[in-house]
Amino acid sequence: MMARRHDKATELRAIPITGMGEVLPGDSVADTILAALRRQKLKLMPGDIVVVTHKIVSKAEARTVMLDRVQPSPASRRWAARYRLDARLVHLAVQQAKRVVRRRRGVIITETAHGFVCANSGVDASNVDGGRSAVLLPADPDRSAREIRLGIRKKTGISVPVLITDSFGRPWREGLCEVTIGVAGMKPFRDFRGRRDPHGYRLRASVEAVADELACMAGLACGKLSRSPACVIRGFPCEPGREGARSIIRPGKRDLFR
Amino acid sequence: MMARRHDKATELRAIPITGMGEVLPGDSVADTILAALRRQKLKLMPGDIVVVTHKIVSKAEARTVMLDRVQPSPASRRWAARYRLDARLVHLAVQQAKRVVRRRRGVIITETAHGFVCANSGVDASNVDGGRSAVLLPADPDRSAREIRLGIRKKTGISVPVLITDSFGRPWREGLCEVTIGVAGMKPFRDFRGRRDPHGYRLRASVEAVADELACMAGLACGKLSRSPACVIRGFPCEPGREGARSIIRPGKRDLFR
Repeated sequence: MMARRHDKATELRAIPITGMGEVLPGDSVADTILAALRRQKLKLMPGDIVVVTHKIVSKAEARTVMLDRVQPSPASRRWAARYRLDARLVHLAVQQAKRVVRRRRGVIITETAHGFVCANSGVDASNVDGGRSAVLLPADPDRSAREIRLGIRKKTGISVPVLITDSFGRPWREGLCEVTIGVAGMKPFRDFRGRRDPHGYRLRASVEAVADELACMAGLACGKLSRSPACVIRGFPCEPGREGARSIIRPGKRDLFR
Repeated sequence: MMARRHDKATELRAIPITGMGEVLPGDSVADTILAALRRQKLKLMPGDIVVVTHKIVSKAEARTVMLDRVQPSPASRRWAARYRLDARLVHLAVQQAKRVVRRRRGVIITETAHGFVCANSGVDASNVDGGRSAVLLPADPDRSAREIRLGIRKKTGISVPVLITDSFGRPWREGLCEVTIGVAGMKPFRDFRGRRDPHGYRLRASVEAVADELACMAGLACGKLSRSPACVIRGFPCEPGREGARSIIRPGKRDLFR
């Protein structure tokens, strides 16, 4: 029997999309990406995956907050003073949270309205406007991903999966890794359960979070200071799917660490 | 001022190393990789990074256990019976642990002797010999990575960073992602702290776990059923370093989730 398509070892490429310029509220992220691709003389091809850091999506969706309009609560002020943080950012982080998961030594880990568990509810002042504003996560990143996918299809006739990413910390391991917060047009997982390895052993627990691995690959290609907030991944045989990034969130009752 | 080398957006490639065949105890992983590269007509170049799944390293280092020689403890037998698991694998997982972090609903999360927090201490029966043996993690994966790096340098004159990887689950998110358990010849992190973004905002918390992101990229390229247990990553401007993967392990006192 032929190996199924998603088993094959395949060469992959991550090509950063450069020269996108500043994204403003109301801009179409799809159009911005396509214009940059044209300038770069890079043509999207069937099978490509477009990965976009959430920050430009949030900016386009006007999910930014002027910090001088934020009135931090007394509790946020106390916490911020104790750890030398910006009380307005602390206040926004708590405000954007459905639940505070841990709060210790200046670190606030929250569960966001979407269900993501991350530091500061994803609120961040970097790569915005020099510290005057903070960016929130998109209200519905799966919907944002679908809109970008549709926008690209409309203009090019090509259907590419779209991933929207952010950088999250992890327990037990130092450093941030990119993760997916929005998915359109592909399965976020590659499921090997029940399949047999080349030795005939039946795999039990092998579900690979390929969307998050693609996010990591894009993060390496884009960097954080390079004004390259999106990239094209070429060569990865993903499977079509409609689940969205919400399916990556582990339900509380299956989670040993809430 | 020129952007520093590790800021630039750069095109990346992950090229799977195919046709490696079975690795036996005592084999040189470096020689096995180089022989496969020759057959594939792929030449290592300065700047390449070689990523190897730990399984072939463990096999070469004879870190396998015949399951019919394992005498599970009564506690392991009870736990296994309750969740329909193989008591011998449960026994090995507990035996390889420095500490059990969580044990619930058939899932055992442990801290290994190295300090990694993962399911079943990394003990795994897939991709070995059809279920007769289990593979343990290498005793010192950073040393294993250094040996492979030295072996490659000796035969080719080229110094490439070497990463050794495994698939770990994560709290809060479904699915496995590749992580690095051994690093030689590069810094596992890209540290943006104190740097300014294009808007002049000084970054505070941005330390990117690039070794783990490279592991993810390699995982996408290699797959799990394809007999491609290693790959070459080309184009990523990593920084030289001697820290090893142990530096990725977050010290207990800095960890909010132990």
